[in-house]
Amino acid sequence: MTRASLSAAPKTVRVDLGDRSYDILIGPGLIATAAGEIAGRLKGRRMAVITDEHVAPLYLEPLMASLKEKGIEAVSLVLPAGEKTKSFEHLIPVCEAILGARIERNDAVIALGGGVIGDLTGFAAGIARRGSRFIQIPTSLLAQVDSSVGGKTGINSPHGKNLIGVFHQPDLVLADTDVLDTLSPREFRAGYAEVAKYGLIDKPDFFAWLEKNWQAVFAGGEARIEAIAISCQAKADVVAADERENGRRALLNLGHTFGHALEAATQYDGRRLVHGEGVAIGMVLAHQFSARMNLASPDDATRVETHLKAVGLPTRMNDIPGTLPPAEKLMDAIAQDKKVKGGKLTFILTRGIGQSFVADDVPANEVLRFLEEKHPG
Amino acid sequence: MTRASLSAAPKTVRVDLGDRSYDILIGPGLIATAAGEIAGRLKGRRMAVITDEHVAPLYLEPLMASLKEKGIEAVSLVLPAGEKTKSFEHLIPVCEAILGARIERNDAVIALGGGVIGDLTGFAAGIARRGSRFIQIPTSLLAQVDSSVGGKTGINSPHGKNLIGVFHQPDLVLADTDVLDTLSPREFRAGYAEVAKYGLIDKPDFFAWLEKNWQAVFAGGEARIEAIAISCQAKADVVAADERENGRRALLNLGHTFGHALEAATQYDGRRLVHGEGVAIGMVLAHQFSARMNLASPDDATRVETHLKAVGLPTRMNDIPGTLPPAEKLMDAIAQDKKVKGGKLTFILTRGIGQSFVADDVPANEVLRFLEEKHPG
Ligand SMILES: NC(=O)c1ccc[n+]([C@@H]2O[C@H](COP(=O)([O-])OP(=O)(O)OC[C@H]3O[C@@H](n4cnc5c(N)ncnc54)[C@H](O)[C@@H]3O)[C@@H](O)[C@H]2O)c1
Ligand SMILES: NC(=O)c1ccc[n+]([C@@H]2O[C@H](COP(=O)([O-])OP(=O)(O)OC[C@H]3O[C@@H](n4cnc5c(N)ncnc54)[C@H](O)[C@@H]3O)[C@@H](O)[C@H]2O)c1
Ligand SMILES: [Zn+2]
Ligand SMILES: [Zn+2]
Repeated sequence: MTRASLSAAPKTVRVDLGDRSYDILIGPGLIATAAGEIAGRLKGRRMAVITDEHVAPLYLEPLMASLKEKGIEAVSLVLPAGEKTKSFEHLIPVCEAILGARIERNDAVIALGGGVIGDLTGFAAGIARRGSRFIQIPTSLLAQVDSSVGGKTGINSPHGKNLIGVFHQPDLVLADTDVLDTLSPREFRAGYAEVAKYGLIDKPDFFAWLEKNWQAVFAGGEARIEAIAISCQAKADVVAADERENGRRALLNLGHTFGHALEAATQYDGRRLVHGEGVAIGMVLAHQFSARMNLASPDDATRVETHLKAVGLPTRMNDIPGTLPPAEKLMDAIAQDKKVKGGKLTFILTRGIGQSFVADDVPANEVLRFLEEKHPG
Repeated sequence: MTRASLSAAPKTVRVDLGDRSYDILIGPGLIATAAGEIAGRLKGRRMAVITDEHVAPLYLEPLMASLKEKGIEAVSLVLPAGEKTKSFEHLIPVCEAILGARIERNDAVIALGGGVIGDLTGFAAGIARRGSRFIQIPTSLLAQVDSSVGGKTGINSPHGKNLIGVFHQPDLVLADTDVLDTLSPREFRAGYAEVAKYGLIDKPDFFAWLEKNWQAVFAGGEARIEAIAISCQAKADVVAADERENGRRALLNLGHTFGHALEAATQYDGRRLVHGEGVAIGMVLAHQFSARMNLASPDDATRVETHLKAVGLPTRMNDIPGTLPPAEKLMDAIAQDKKVKGGKLTFILTRGIGQSFVADDVPANEVLRFLEEKHPG
């Protein structure tokens, strides 16, 4: 955390997955130089760029110009912004655009946007011609530190979030830290929840560093790059150790079981709750529930809540505008969540800050009682 | 070819793919005993069965009864029959049915039907929860000897056949050879084209055996089981050596580049042309084109055509009812086919019966001239 580099060269985090290993470049100005990084790594000269209506007016033009300059022929497709875009309705035109652009073996599909565009585009790249090359240019903090790394792609179903998708690793990730300046403060905070998560999983020192330095991270510059690089490294380490989420990778779901239930309960309506906000509330709930199960000290739950509240994140179910369905309905969403095993509930619980673990047999009725307590009526 | 087993126990072909290896069982009466085979291999007790409107009235009931008897809770979904079912339109309800059935880690999705149901269901299983267990119960000859083995799944796009999908290996394949008795003679012949293909790829003795014994294969009994087992073994060997179709696996496409172009040219209208018929014509064309390129003797092309014609398969483009688009249009379909590499055409050509090979740099203009010759106007 104390090494601070002042050089202009981007930081590189390597995701080690044998012959599917790839680099994450993190630094300022990467969109303008994207084509150089791509052309140096991929032989193909045809690309399809998928982005959304918020990101397109800001960054599509410079990216297309950079590609053109390197002799890369690219088509682009602009989709509506928001979680609802992660659906079959939008997957279909993305697939057709990729096929229509005649993307071949060495060409690539590029996702330019937040996690929604990354997840949707990665899925489309994963199924077009049974797997096309894929480049992530994440433009939200959440996408830079989390969704663009690790190869999980997918869309939502009426039955739940991210229930349909594939594992499809990118060939390259370009995290341009400058573009975060146009991200709304609310979205920046939401992404920050995932940064804090890495501290809470197994990096107590990083969490403590964030408690002191979060304002510098929000302001930009070296502290921001550092926080993103540490986060990417943390995720890359977990992914390399457990690509398919059978063991350790599940730790990345800290706060997500509760978080996903809340997102479902608010119909994925970003006006009420965005993903990172659900994760923030979920992480506080996970620490409180762990305390209730006598696994961790209630002081740790308080410390987590205090920090997340300080940066401006919601930390309680009551912080969500509008009415939430009763606790029992939330439980339905939790039981349909991917982390179900033969009827028992799998949760990420903790023994304290930076001491998370996978609990395989959490009694559903304990969770229900806890939720009823936290959200009466 | 000479070993003939008279025992009632099904033949087993093992597909060797490390920790994703699986068995193909081939024999009479397997649908009635399906649940026993499944319960012996999978821990899950929840299944979703996907089938089509032709197969459902014949075999769904006995399968569901067998599952119920073993304490397996199953839901079923019946789709329209035919190639057009391999589309996003039908993929969506299959995914939702799987998720709605709450298929968990050890449960499975079952495809009961021909290659259409197998490809579509396998794709849905491959993306539901980023990969659910999958059992193939192929009911057409083509599905038993080809599509149910090897893990290629997918749907069609307006841009071409099978352009969207994933590799997703089944956990078990149950080929009940009795059910082929209700298959229409035309569909049986179409599947037989793929059986003959294995001989033409690299088993000249098997092809010679088929020339003598094809009537017994059509009649049923041991010769049929034997031919199916040899075909499955041939495909299993190729798949084990090259799961992702980078090298040797491409040989399985013998006859398919031309065949797919003809399927596209007839708008996948099964009344005019079914897959195996396209492959039959395609294999004859591949041998004729190889002869034209001075790679093989024209006598081999004649021998292939004579045999396929004897069993009642179409062997020439003119055998297809209705008008075909001009040769140039057929070329468009060939160039969009998956086997395109950087603009050059990849074809499976041959040096004679059972001596196929992958040709990487077939000049497109030679193919066009050949097609114009074979299909003037
Ligand atoms: N695949 C994974 O491993 C993984 C991990 C975590 C989250 N996710 C998914 O990520 C999604 C959330 O990602 P998100 O928070 O990035 O959402 P998002 O993609 O909706 O982006 C948030 C908003 O910010 C806008 N935006 C993005 N970059 C911008 C920029 N530089 N300037 C201005 N506006 C910008 C977007 O248009 C959108 O309106 C969820 O769907 C979640 O499920 C996936
Ligand atoms: N995945 C692969 O590796 C692979 C390989 C080869 C072909 N395929 C695909 O397979 C498909 C063709 O398969 P198909 O020929 O089985 O087509 P199909 O599934 O359409 O079946 C042919 C017809 O026979 C009916 N039928 C099936 N079994 C029957 C039975 N026992 N009794 C009576 N009727 C029955 C079906 O309802 C259908 O009308 C194509 O889409 C092709 O692309 C895939
Ligand atoms: Zn998250
Ligand atoms: Zn075929």
